[in-house]
Amino acid sequence: MGVTTRKEYLSSLRGLRPNIYKFGELIEDVTRHPATKRVVESHARNYDAANDPALESIYTSTSVYTGEKILRWNSMMQSADDLIANMIMKRQNFRRSGSCTGGVCVGWNAQNVMWAVTYEMDQALGTAYQQRLQDWILAAQKHGLTVAGALTDAKGDRSLKPSQQPDLDANVRVVDVREDGIIIRGAKVMIAGAAAAQEIFLLPGSIYGEADRDFAVVCVVPRDIEGLTIVEATHPSDRRELEETAGYEVPDTGTTQGLLFFEDVFVPNSRVFMCREYKYTAQVIKYFTANYRACIGACVAGQGDVMIGASTLMARANGLSSKVFANKMIDMSINNQVTYGLGAGACAMGSPHPSGSYFADPLTAHTNKVMVSRLPYETKRLAQDIGGGIVETGCMPSYQDLSDPTYGHLLEKYLKAGPCSSTARFKAARLTEWLTVGAGVPGCMHGGGSPDGARLVVRFSTPFEEYAEYAKKIIGIEEAVPEPQKK
Amino acid sequence: MGVTTRKEYLSSLRGLRPNIYKFGELIEDVTRHPATKRVVESHARNYDAANDPALESIYTSTSVYTGEKILRWNSMMQSADDLIANMIMKRQNFRRSGSCTGGVCVGWNAQNVMWAVTYEMDQALGTAYQQRLQDWILAAQKHGLTVAGALTDAKGDRSLKPSQQPDLDANVRVVDVREDGIIIRGAKVMIAGAAAAQEIFLLPGSIYGEADRDFAVVCVVPRDIEGLTIVEATHPSDRRELEETAGYEVPDTGTTQGLLFFEDVFVPNSRVFMCREYKYTAQVIKYFTANYRACIGACVAGQGDVMIGASTLMARANGLSSKVFANKMIDMSINNQVTYGLGAGACAMGSPHPSGSYFADPLTAHTNKVMVSRLPYETKRLAQDIGGGIVETGCMPSYQDLSDPTYGHLLEKYLKAGPCSSTARFKAARLTEWLTVGAGVPGCMHGGGSPDGARLVVRFSTPFEEYAEYAKKIIGIEEAVPEPQKK
Amino acid sequence: MGVTTRKEYLSSLRGLRPNIYKFGELIEDVTRHPATKRVVESHARNYDAANDPALESIYTSTSVYTGEKILRWNSMMQSADDLIANMIMKRQNFRRSGSCTGGVCVGWNAQNVMWAVTYEMDQALGTAYQQRLQDWILAAQKHGLTVAGALTDAKGDRSLKPSQQPDLDANVRVVDVREDGIIIRGAKVMIAGAAAAQEIFLLPGSIYGEADRDFAVVCVVPRDIEGLTIVEATHPSDRRELEETAGYEVPDTGTTQGLLFFEDVFVPNSRVFMCREYKYTAQVIKYFTANYRACIGACVAGQGDVMIGASTLMARANGLSSKVFANKMIDMSINNQVTYGLGAGACAMGSPHPSGSYFADPLTAHTNKVMVSRLPYETKRLAQDIGGGIVETGCMPSYQDLSDPTYGHLLEKYLKAGPCSSTARFKAARLTEWLTVGAGVPGCMHGGGSPDGARLVVRFSTPFEEYAEYAKKIIGIEEAVPEPQKK
Amino acid sequence: MGVTTRKEYLSSLRGLRPNIYKFGELIEDVTRHPATKRVVESHARNYDAANDPALESIYTSTSVYTGEKILRWNSMMQSADDLIANMIMKRQNFRRSGSCTGGVCVGWNAQNVMWAVTYEMDQALGTAYQQRLQDWILAAQKHGLTVAGALTDAKGDRSLKPSQQPDLDANVRVVDVREDGIIIRGAKVMIAGAAAAQEIFLLPGSIYGEADRDFAVVCVVPRDIEGLTIVEATHPSDRRELEETAGYEVPDTGTTQGLLFFEDVFVPNSRVFMCREYKYTAQVIKYFTANYRACIGACVAGQGDVMIGASTLMARANGLSSKVFANKMIDMSINNQVTYGLGAGACAMGSPHPSGSYFADPLTAHTNKVMVSRLPYETKRLAQDIGGGIVETGCMPSYQDLSDPTYGHLLEKYLKAGPCSSTARFKAARLTEWLTVGAGVPGCMHGGGSPDGARLVVRFSTPFEEYAEYAKKIIGIEEAVPEPQKK
Repeated sequence: MGVTTRKEYLSSLRGLRPNIYKFGELIEDVTRHPATKRVVESHARNYDAANDPALESIYTSTSVYTGEKILRWNSMMQSADDLIANMIMKRQNFRRSGSCTGGVCVGWNAQNVMWAVTYEMDQALGTAYQQRLQDWILAAQKHGLTVAGALTDAKGDRSLKPSQQPDLDANVRVVDVREDGIIIRGAKVMIAGAAAAQEIFLLPGSIYGEADRDFAVVCVVPRDIEGLTIVEATHPSDRRELEETAGYEVPDTGTTQGLLFFEDVFVPNSRVFMCREYKYTAQVIKYFTANYRACIGACVAGQGDVMIGASTLMARANGLSSKVFANKMIDMSINNQVTYGLGAGACAMGSPHPSGSYFADPLTAHTNKVMVSRLPYETKRLAQDIGGGIVETGCMPSYQDLSDPTYGHLLEKYLKAGPCSSTARFKAARLTEWLTVGAGVPGCMHGGGSPDGARLVVRFSTPFEEYAEYAKKIIGIEEAVPEPQKK
Repeated sequence: MGVTTRKEYLSSLRGLRPNIYKFGELIEDVTRHPATKRVVESHARNYDAANDPALESIYTSTSVYTGEKILRWNSMMQSADDLIANMIMKRQNFRRSGSCTGGVCVGWNAQNVMWAVTYEMDQALGTAYQQRLQDWILAAQKHGLTVAGALTDAKGDRSLKPSQQPDLDANVRVVDVREDGIIIRGAKVMIAGAAAAQEIFLLPGSIYGEADRDFAVVCVVPRDIEGLTIVEATHPSDRRELEETAGYEVPDTGTTQGLLFFEDVFVPNSRVFMCREYKYTAQVIKYFTANYRACIGACVAGQGDVMIGASTLMARANGLSSKVFANKMIDMSINNQVTYGLGAGACAMGSPHPSGSYFADPLTAHTNKVMVSRLPYETKRLAQDIGGGIVETGCMPSYQDLSDPTYGHLLEKYLKAGPCSSTARFKAARLTEWLTVGAGVPGCMHGGGSPDGARLVVRFSTPFEEYAEYAKKIIGIEEAVPEPQKK
Repeated sequence: MGVTTRKEYLSSLRGLRPNIYKFGELIEDVTRHPATKRVVESHARNYDAANDPALESIYTSTSVYTGEKILRWNSMMQSADDLIANMIMKRQNFRRSGSCTGGVCVGWNAQNVMWAVTYEMDQALGTAYQQRLQDWILAAQKHGLTVAGALTDAKGDRSLKPSQQPDLDANVRVVDVREDGIIIRGAKVMIAGAAAAQEIFLLPGSIYGEADRDFAVVCVVPRDIEGLTIVEATHPSDRRELEETAGYEVPDTGTTQGLLFFEDVFVPNSRVFMCREYKYTAQVIKYFTANYRACIGACVAGQGDVMIGASTLMARANGLSSKVFANKMIDMSINNQVTYGLGAGACAMGSPHPSGSYFADPLTAHTNKVMVSRLPYETKRLAQDIGGGIVETGCMPSYQDLSDPTYGHLLEKYLKAGPCSSTARFKAARLTEWLTVGAGVPGCMHGGGSPDGARLVVRFSTPFEEYAEYAKKIIGIEEAVPEPQKK
Repeated sequence: MGVTTRKEYLSSLRGLRPNIYKFGELIEDVTRHPATKRVVESHARNYDAANDPALESIYTSTSVYTGEKILRWNSMMQSADDLIANMIMKRQNFRRSGSCTGGVCVGWNAQNVMWAVTYEMDQALGTAYQQRLQDWILAAQKHGLTVAGALTDAKGDRSLKPSQQPDLDANVRVVDVREDGIIIRGAKVMIAGAAAAQEIFLLPGSIYGEADRDFAVVCVVPRDIEGLTIVEATHPSDRRELEETAGYEVPDTGTTQGLLFFEDVFVPNSRVFMCREYKYTAQVIKYFTANYRACIGACVAGQGDVMIGASTLMARANGLSSKVFANKMIDMSINNQVTYGLGAGACAMGSPHPSGSYFADPLTAHTNKVMVSRLPYETKRLAQDIGGGIVETGCMPSYQDLSDPTYGHLLEKYLKAGPCSSTARFKAARLTEWLTVGAGVPGCMHGGGSPDGARLVVRFSTPFEEYAEYAKKIIGIEEAVPEPQKK
């Protein structure tokens, strides 16, 4: 039953209470509303793939609990190969949807991270979190759920800790612990794919000390839980999605980022996997970022592949052989493979956790995050370079103009260039814009945390003193060379 | 009279025949329609500046013909200092409008280029083009005109010359020469600022041989000339400009790129400055690109300055000292100053033309074009890095949501962070988006031609054999070291 | 017996016939002559490590043939983990010697490559090469040999194939096949670590067609075989190694590159693993470059670690806290980890060969080669930046001056700066020079082939048409978009 | 008389007291000793050029005092054109010598800087320094002197000010003021071209406060003044210069960096231009760095030109058309032109000083210093990439080996490749090595100060608050957005 179908998935989404807004409007059916149907379509394609013999090895896996065939994004990741399989699926996702399918990424990672952290808490504190988590995972596997993850708090003033904020709600927190569950309040922001998810996995967004213990909370909630309001953010160019001519301007797929407002939401104990155990927030962050930042290289590689494809189309649509741009395309391919291969390296050099979970090598994973914050920008620049002025921002009219009865024929006449129709050229150019400065751009700079945070991890993971000792031995310095004293 | 005012300028624009379309709609009044009023406002600010004692030295100059004070963008550029004054004004324009004011740039450059080329033609061919041009310039100076320039033809199939295209209209050409003037047909595309211009200066977009002599045409036409249809292209996010809440989402300024369709347009002889003298198209391209690509460094520097400013605001609005990001801001400032200083260097190393015109050093100018196709992209990346997830594409809701009566208060509550209002933070974030992936992005990659074209000029301007001789002399190789023979 | 000791290794080297020249001199004892003793010391440290309980897990392995403990660099690599273990050892080698220990790298890779290629030849052609190879490997394991590898032919005119060269000796070839063995002639150049090796493994340097079948030869020869003359190349600054004061100027370790001249050398059949089977040269190149270019990221990472160490020392020796340079050191660490992690990724995504050998993913491995041709140069630049003028080339006097009885005290007085002796500062500066522009620089640009060759592999490994199809599907282009026809 | 000849120059150098040491040896005649004759030859070629009708316009100028024709490097620079003429000459110098001719650079800049600073001091303090300086300049012009400049003190502990150093001599200072002159002590280091100079111009190396007033000293001394000892530093590979075969290994030209030790040197008042006026050290640094860092872009461009030339030779010598590498050569040319054009831009945007001196724009000049610390490293990397393994460090034997009677013929045979002799290929490869990692490498990273210092100037020259105001106006933020308060 775990390998559910597109139909079951869409039907399940339609059964949820409407609580998502965009442009001042409540979205009644996320699967049909133009503001959300694209992100739902992106995810629905995963269900197609899981049921497609040609792709099922990528999109399905086996439950470590039941031995049954399940959707890969409900599985446990317990080896380097499992992590690399995650990467392979993500690259494939981007190739098939052109953008981020966040709903199969953060929640999946979260359940694996919490498998290890609940193990540690249970061992040390005598709690029984892991069994609760296992029950939830089994249900998720059974129903083939898509689960978005939510880490990033609204944060408020960056120079203050959560408990020091003028408005405590700036970070999600436990406001009450009852016998049967907890009450949470606050905001999580920049959640990818919430509209396409059936459930949302909440994790703490930082490492907290005792004063911030109320913010140390991990739980899973249905996306339509009472007290939760979601507002979708807006991408450049996403107003096109609302237009009649959207079919020509934008893909049927897409991504969204949402803001989640929890106003005294009750979460039953069976869905709570951490409550005020603040000392374990460091573990959550450490495990989460290691795997997330290893695998994120696959996402941007997959989108880069589509940019190479779009550039190939544009060259030809302009009347040129794509071979003219071979050097630039090689550079794009190298950029893609650096983030992908580095991610695989982080996976390969990872370590098993006593709980059975497996985590990527942090130094390599965070190095990859730094690459991910740079190389895709270079790839986008090259896509705009190859495509010519027509793909660069603001140099092509809208489809409304292209199809205008009075002067549309003029546009059509002048858009024709290479061995394809003017509509094909229009679409290839719009796709390039969408990928490079439009609504298809995923948040690779700050998604999963900022590159500066990654640099800090690199700093503290690099054994500078050990390296100084190597240098001393090689050149034969026997005396101590200490840091100078402050004067 | 030459230093006209905002009022006179707007009134003049209102007097033009409506012939501009966007989103399927004919724009009746470019100064008031939301799709064009922003680009008009950008240019109107130049008239303000020219009448502002604090800025008039930047924005006005003296007519070399009459000695009268005129708008700088109607002046002749006859020295390195004149070119640098052009750069200073452009950087200032971007600082004040945030984006490209194409209407004071290409047309102005064109009149100076043609001053030299008409001189050469008149000398060699006995034509009398220069006098016609002077008459037109005098009128432009007298009325303080804003003149857009149009070079880039629709081109059609990139692998074919204009005369080989299946549809000859893919490039603008002379279809008839009559006693009193000429008839032109075809399309020019990616014209910046056409909606804000009173006239349009047409130049050939490439170097043409004899077979393409009909395409060797230079003339100036009123923007509303009979037979000319203009369609505005669309930027990502420019649909926001049409909304009621636009005042919160986008600046009052902006840029546009237009497509111009000439359907058998009659241009009287007094406005024609080249007609089939194909041998002189090489001169047009050479002079035009030298000055244009020298000065373009000022544009991107000015926009980069605003990105630094927006990043400073964002850091603070997030609750952090902007000093935290000092290193990144220094990098941004360095990027700006590289393109600006390199442009000034191209100007300083330029040469006077016998006609009185002055042209920047081509090797340095084209080197700058290559920098302009790279460094601003890096600066944008840094602006997104500093601003945090909220400025990265797609992570902030619309103003419609922020002001929604039901849930807007939630957004407002959570957007508050640093020592300013949530609206100020919203606006600073939106500005950063507009500058980096939105409607404020000018076409610096392909505007004025592609970076690959610039690399070709670098190639043919670099004396490789001379450099090989230096190397030989330094190391004492006395024999010839020729290119190997093909085998 | 396979884990031999430094003593046995040095004794074995001393037993070889002198056939290595440098600076016009025949080197009688490579273990004691200043031109070669440093590269020997680098390799001798590997024997130390293999016998050191703290390092033996890195430096030893188990024979797949006998189950005995052997030196890792004599082992078969049959899994991703084996390849990563190769990388771990190489990074460690650079950390302990500061430079390239080529003798444990190319020969080792060659035996694994040939294990697969002899398998393929034997299967297809009915030859019995693999058994010969196994016999040789068993002997190498038993005696714990250090084996250099030799691929790069002198090549002659780059535009001609080997059989077209005016001098056929420009590439090593079979000049005669006798019953008991073959006769080879020609030159191999840029062989790292030949002076420290007991044997040399020869492989073809390119893919050959039938006309070049004589050049398709694989064999192993003792380093002192009759008819082989070796000339050592010279590094910048390696003349210091010959001086009395060398102990202060250069490390006790180092690398060498040699040129090998084969003048009708007889190789018995037992040491010949390919002879004119030209069709298999493509396999040799493909397998060799995949593993070599995956693992080379570890070498430059290890040397980068020492550069970080040297920079830490320099900052302090100059009187500054090394924390002042934290950002630059993080950049150095990121550079190191990119090439290392990308190499590990190539290993992890590799494939097993039916013979038992295992080969890294070519696309990722060749991408890494491109990184290796860039990032270490950036790391060197940063080391010179942090170290200050004193480490930049040409700004510090020689030790002869520092120890001069007349004015040496002046130098000593002025070299004293931070919390260490002036000699320690002198040595740290010299080490930085040695690492960045001196004799410690390994050939990471062209070693194992040029980065342009790697780009070609990237080009032919990237499925451009498949990517174009993804793009078409995403934006809904259903028509074909072919390459334009030549006109 | 001002345009002296090579012969007069060499004769004058020979007349100086020997006080220069290298490798433990006192150099009796700098014009003939192999350790110094190359730097002398580099400078002697300037005298040739000044007397060569084809080059004299570059190498000579007119005295503003006497109207006589003089060597350009003795002239006053009083306009942007004068500064650009300086740049033109420097680029030419590098093209003709392959390396740094420091003796025509720092001293020349110093005299122009001090012309302005003595003017300011005289105006404010009533001193009469400028007249003294003018007298010295007139003499320098008359005798056509080559004057090295000396700024960089030995510095000692970087975290302490000069007056706080354990050894006060770490920075050059006034130890006594007598009626007829001053006594100075201490060390200046990294002085380029001292061995080729007749006099040395000393400037303070930093901005000093009152406690460090003794270090505020400016004067000119003969290079052989009593009490001055000079030790030449060593470059990688410069031991080759001492060998018999040097003619094949290294150019006849070159550069040197020296260390100057002043042990109670008496300087008569006529040669003292600042003595304890510490407040003016800031002016010295400001003016000096502006002009020096503007013009340094010409040096590295000139050396880059030679690298392009050497790469052209190498491609051909390897048997390939240099066109194969067109893209890389264009990149090299762009790198050269960025630093050159940016320097010209800094000159063009400079300002006249009331004294008549002229200073480049600091923001642009310091931006250029940052480029100079990066781009030449990239150009070197490309030269090694194009040249192939043979030019990369350590892959070619010495000329001693190439000419060895026993085996030299083997090397010669295998070095032959393209359409030139093996010696020409050897020399072109050696030249590339010399330019990229050998003795020809000038100190462009730290010469004239570190790039980090330049970044600080960029920081303090960028009007961040003004830029924030532009951003606020563009998006309509009317409230203050201050730096957050410390909490």
